[in-house]
Amino acid sequence: MSVTSSSVGIVSAQYAAFDTPLALACGAVLPAYQLAFETYGTLNAAKSNAILICHALSGHHHVAGRYSESDKSAGWWDNMIGPGKPIDTERFFVVGVNNLGGCHGSTGPSSINPASGQPWGADFPMVTVADWVIAQARLADRLGIERWAAVIGGSLGGMQALDWSIRFPERIAHALVIASAPKLSAQNIAFNDVARQAILTDPEFHGGNFYGQGVLPRRGLRLARMLGHITYLSDDGMGEKFGRMLRSGEYQFGFDVEFEIESYLRYQGDKFSDSFDANTYLLMTKALDYFDPAREYGGDLVKALQRASAGFLVASFTSDWRFSPERSRETVKALVAAGRRVSYAEIESAHGHDAFLMLDPPYVELMRAYLGRVAAEISA
Amino acid sequence: MSVTSSSVGIVSAQYAAFDTPLALACGAVLPAYQLAFETYGTLNAAKSNAILICHALSGHHHVAGRYSESDKSAGWWDNMIGPGKPIDTERFFVVGVNNLGGCHGSTGPSSINPASGQPWGADFPMVTVADWVIAQARLADRLGIERWAAVIGGSLGGMQALDWSIRFPERIAHALVIASAPKLSAQNIAFNDVARQAILTDPEFHGGNFYGQGVLPRRGLRLARMLGHITYLSDDGMGEKFGRMLRSGEYQFGFDVEFEIESYLRYQGDKFSDSFDANTYLLMTKALDYFDPAREYGGDLVKALQRASAGFLVASFTSDWRFSPERSRETVKALVAAGRRVSYAEIESAHGHDAFLMLDPPYVELMRAYLGRVAAEISA
Repeated sequence: MSVTSSSVGIVSAQYAAFDTPLALACGAVLPAYQLAFETYGTLNAAKSNAILICHALSGHHHVAGRYSESDKSAGWWDNMIGPGKPIDTERFFVVGVNNLGGCHGSTGPSSINPASGQPWGADFPMVTVADWVIAQARLADRLGIERWAAVIGGSLGGMQALDWSIRFPERIAHALVIASAPKLSAQNIAFNDVARQAILTDPEFHGGNFYGQGVLPRRGLRLARMLGHITYLSDDGMGEKFGRMLRSGEYQFGFDVEFEIESYLRYQGDKFSDSFDANTYLLMTKALDYFDPAREYGGDLVKALQRASAGFLVASFTSDWRFSPERSRETVKALVAAGRRVSYAEIESAHGHDAFLMLDPPYVELMRAYLGRVAAEISA
Repeated sequence: MSVTSSSVGIVSAQYAAFDTPLALACGAVLPAYQLAFETYGTLNAAKSNAILICHALSGHHHVAGRYSESDKSAGWWDNMIGPGKPIDTERFFVVGVNNLGGCHGSTGPSSINPASGQPWGADFPMVTVADWVIAQARLADRLGIERWAAVIGGSLGGMQALDWSIRFPERIAHALVIASAPKLSAQNIAFNDVARQAILTDPEFHGGNFYGQGVLPRRGLRLARMLGHITYLSDDGMGEKFGRMLRSGEYQFGFDVEFEIESYLRYQGDKFSDSFDANTYLLMTKALDYFDPAREYGGDLVKALQRASAGFLVASFTSDWRFSPERSRETVKALVAAGRRVSYAEIESAHGHDAFLMLDPPYVELMRAYLGRVAAEISA
């Protein structure tokens, strides 16, 4: 695939270093840190057309475009962001950022801890959605963006958009909260804990300090990712795509790959375990578990959202069972009870949780229409 | 808990040795084997009141009663089987059996392979539901039971009941197929494969030949069981029981147990990994994956079930997402299309897949009513 005319084209990552210590929710203080980010499009003179894209569990700042003409893969949301696309870079200045604790250029467990001169490893402090949002606000300051036209995210990214709306109500005009939830359920936490236990009990995890050992906890990370993928797809979607198809057509009566679905999952697990940092995976899943914006408001989500002044688009997908439409409706009900402006769409899709990354036509049209209104507000 | 009046009382396991070689579906031949079993109640003179209980993934032959007055735990279906209970031992002669490949007394991977004088380990052949049913039929021969009044099972046990009805139509008067499915979905297989990969990649698995190594693949088995437990409970049931409850009331910002659901899962995983054989776990999950009785009939379940002559009770539970009611309805539709006698019940329950082991009143009444009719047929 070449860089097409509807692509943002060749992009490059930027890095912002921050020397002001950051007090984290866990009580630790990060003395200094850097954030990796990318921008596409042009910030207008009023600096009113900026959109922040928040990433999910395994995402990063490389949201659109390619790093070179020969780059085989585009940014993770390239199908949604670009000239003429729903998140239109001809109208918006789009910012992607890698969150703190990440493994794609922002300060995280594999970065050097200035106190020891060694990688942080297990000593990297726990980070939360609130910490990320505060760090993102500092990046906004750096870029001269006082107020986002929109903060957009799917899944864990949607949690950041929701948190932005409560934490910095004056700095966000619109929050797009897609395939997300106002907090995890027991089952969500349970899946995360199995994934974490797979990593934590991998003998090559070495208590999180594997960087100097010449090994990686690939087995644990691979299992975590395989399990994750099951929850990203719908039962029906998986059935349509893989069913009970056998690679060889016949039962093999052994433990090698036999069904196509096994082949798919193991491939996804292998690929991920070679490229993602195990400590980052642990941190991201804990950030998910901890997210509960109502907690600071006596458990009352309505009260929390009464602080918000943004317009909201909440979207869910019918076959998503990781964050089902019911979970999005919790957010919507609380927004309505808080008297906020909210549009809600429950989109028919067979893609499960992954649907937020896909191009189901009603989803594309919804995004295009909502962001068209956001753009119109800016011009007005 | 003491042995109450409605218990079958003190029981003991029996062992039946078979010297006739058993040709397995995988092509291997098991030269000789033994089956562990238990019986409760009295076989009548006509030998027409026998009921076979088939176990699920981690079950065994110890279905009811206790091994001594001080035995703290009863058989796994003691709440359903006993004098005056739905599976009434005053009317029925009840047989529980541990399946081939098991780890509770029947020949399996931890048994000695006569060819080598060592535990079978990885050399134990793959076993299928069909193999189990054929071995169970030989046990029936040994006990002088020509025809079961009923074969009953939940989950993987229900698959055995279904297979009995097709494979030996003349030897089974009723099949009770509870919380089961006519074959696994891609998602079911995916969960099984993650569990298997956890075991197979545990360095202490030693390719299945860990018996002589002084180690056990506990980490893998623990993960497999934790994951299994998530699929046994419903999202809502888990939410009601555990929610987001914290053990200490506050976030700890660490990787130790923090949420109650984590504590529950890890406890279940630890307990299981100390007591269950990893090779058996692998075999049982493959038997689940392979089960597909329609396969021998050109993929036509209706055609397969046209061989059956038993009466059927198919039951499912509303909150079971491992084998959802939809999967039971597939079986029911095929039975109806095949012109078979079938009763179907979709039981309201919050217990998820585990409901088949619980005492939701409509379930208990259903079992009591159906088996009451089975008993009446025998007396008639």
